[in-house]
Amino acid sequence: MTENKSEKTITVELGNRSYDVRIGPGMLSQVGQAVAELGNVSQAIVISDSTVAAIYGQAVCDSISSTDISVTLIQFPAGEANKTLATFSQLMDSLFAITPAIDRNSVIVALGGGVTGDMAGFVAATALRGLRWLQCPTTVLADVDASVGGKTAVDHAAGKNLIGSFHQPSGVLIDVDTLATLPELQLKSGLAECVKHGVIREVSLLDYIDDNAAQILACDTAVMTEFLARNVAIKAGVVAADEQESGVRAYLNFGHTIG
Amino acid sequence: MTENKSEKTITVELGNRSYDVRIGPGMLSQVGQAVAELGNVSQAIVISDSTVAAIYGQAVCDSISSTDISVTLIQFPAGEANKTLATFSQLMDSLFAITPAIDRNSVIVALGGGVTGDMAGFVAATALRGLRWLQCPTTVLADVDASVGGKTAVDHAAGKNLIGSFHQPSGVLIDVDTLATLPELQLKSGLAECVKHGVIREVSLLDYIDDNAAQILACDTAVMTEFLARNVAIKAGVVAADEQESGVRAYLNFGHTIG
Repeated sequence: MTENKSEKTITVELGNRSYDVRIGPGMLSQVGQAVAELGNVSQAIVISDSTVAAIYGQAVCDSISSTDISVTLIQFPAGEANKTLATFSQLMDSLFAITPAIDRNSVIVALGGGVTGDMAGFVAATALRGLRWLQCPTTVLADVDASVGGKTAVDHAAGKNLIGSFHQPSGVLIDVDTLATLPELQLKSGLAECVKHGVIREVSLLDYIDDNAAQILACDTAVMTEFLARNVAIKAGVVAADEQESGVRAYLNFGHTIG
Repeated sequence: MTENKSEKTITVELGNRSYDVRIGPGMLSQVGQAVAELGNVSQAIVISDSTVAAIYGQAVCDSISSTDISVTLIQFPAGEANKTLATFSQLMDSLFAITPAIDRNSVIVALGGGVTGDMAGFVAATALRGLRWLQCPTTVLADVDASVGGKTAVDHAAGKNLIGSFHQPSGVLIDVDTLATLPELQLKSGLAECVKHGVIREVSLLDYIDDNAAQILACDTAVMTEFLARNVAIKAGVVAADEQESGVRAYLNFGHTIG
């Protein structure tokens, strides 16, 4: 695969489960090609929440259809309150209602923020004991955190992310254009996560934020691509060193676990 | 661990996820020791169906308690009809209601037949994104088939075992004494599975069945231990060659998939 000049690629090194995180503008239009390149794909299923599906669902499905792979869009109601086993169960009902039936060559595409990635990823981890999946995160937080590491989960009344599994995606496509449609609060909370990466792992990231604050807040395409790539690289390094979170990765979780 | 003379051990070779299947009489009384030997165990949770819990639940819990590890028994209604996401959800509710709360050093013990192994295994695979677990199968079919390979699942209205994952246990304890309490029909359907192993993989097994039919049907301890060990060894070889079932393991599934 040739990398476009405006695009950055970070490889998450996990032996035979390694995958690329591609970052740049217009990436959602390349989802179809990315699915097709996985090889031996029987069909694709895009899982998205109601908010993101309304904005990007059709475009992603069109991208997949254009490669002659049949695609189905499955939606669930937006919001962390819906990240439950009950919603997971409904997603499974929708998945197994598809005709022709899904098989082990079917591919899940997770399109949306952290909730969607976690839940669609858990569907991919457990449908037919594990399907390949692509992540297309659409929020800063999902871009730099949830999109790397293969952590999937739903919440339980007793706490967040209590039910899930580790299931690495086959690839991640981060379309920086999607950040322009984000509410400002969501953009800023994502940037706060990036600052955390800088504080914990790489102080040079703080300098980069300092030097480019205006362009980052304005979602300048080139600066945002570089900025997200630097963040993803940090997270990728942590995940490669400790896939199952026994040690160093636990540090990056401070805040999430409490939250 | 020293192997008792009346006991057989088969190792399932899966690299750093290898584990032993121990077969013999009185094995349920050794569950506590087996849990303790895993090391760094915060607590144990025995998951069993109502039928098996009534017969063996107390003895297994006593065995664990005797090692000073705290233990909780969680039951669900017996029967394949209950191998659902709804029951799985109830098991998770029970699991997360335990005080003190479970953590990543908690250990699940699956006590029962194939339904229990599949469902308790799926709980172990997904609670806190994966807990260690021991399998204590109590039917012939679970002994020789479900107990080896780490396949976990629940059924869906659209088909059997559609939702699950591969999650290898830390060990398997097969107590041949439990077979004496099996209904004859269940014993015989398990033996049919053993004949299938013989037909497909090892004709010498058919000779063994032929020569020892009376003792097998009478659940003679020594003969049954040897017989189950031969069957487990066949399955272990298949699983070691193809953990995720892309090839040869699919052959052993003929019958199950149709069923």
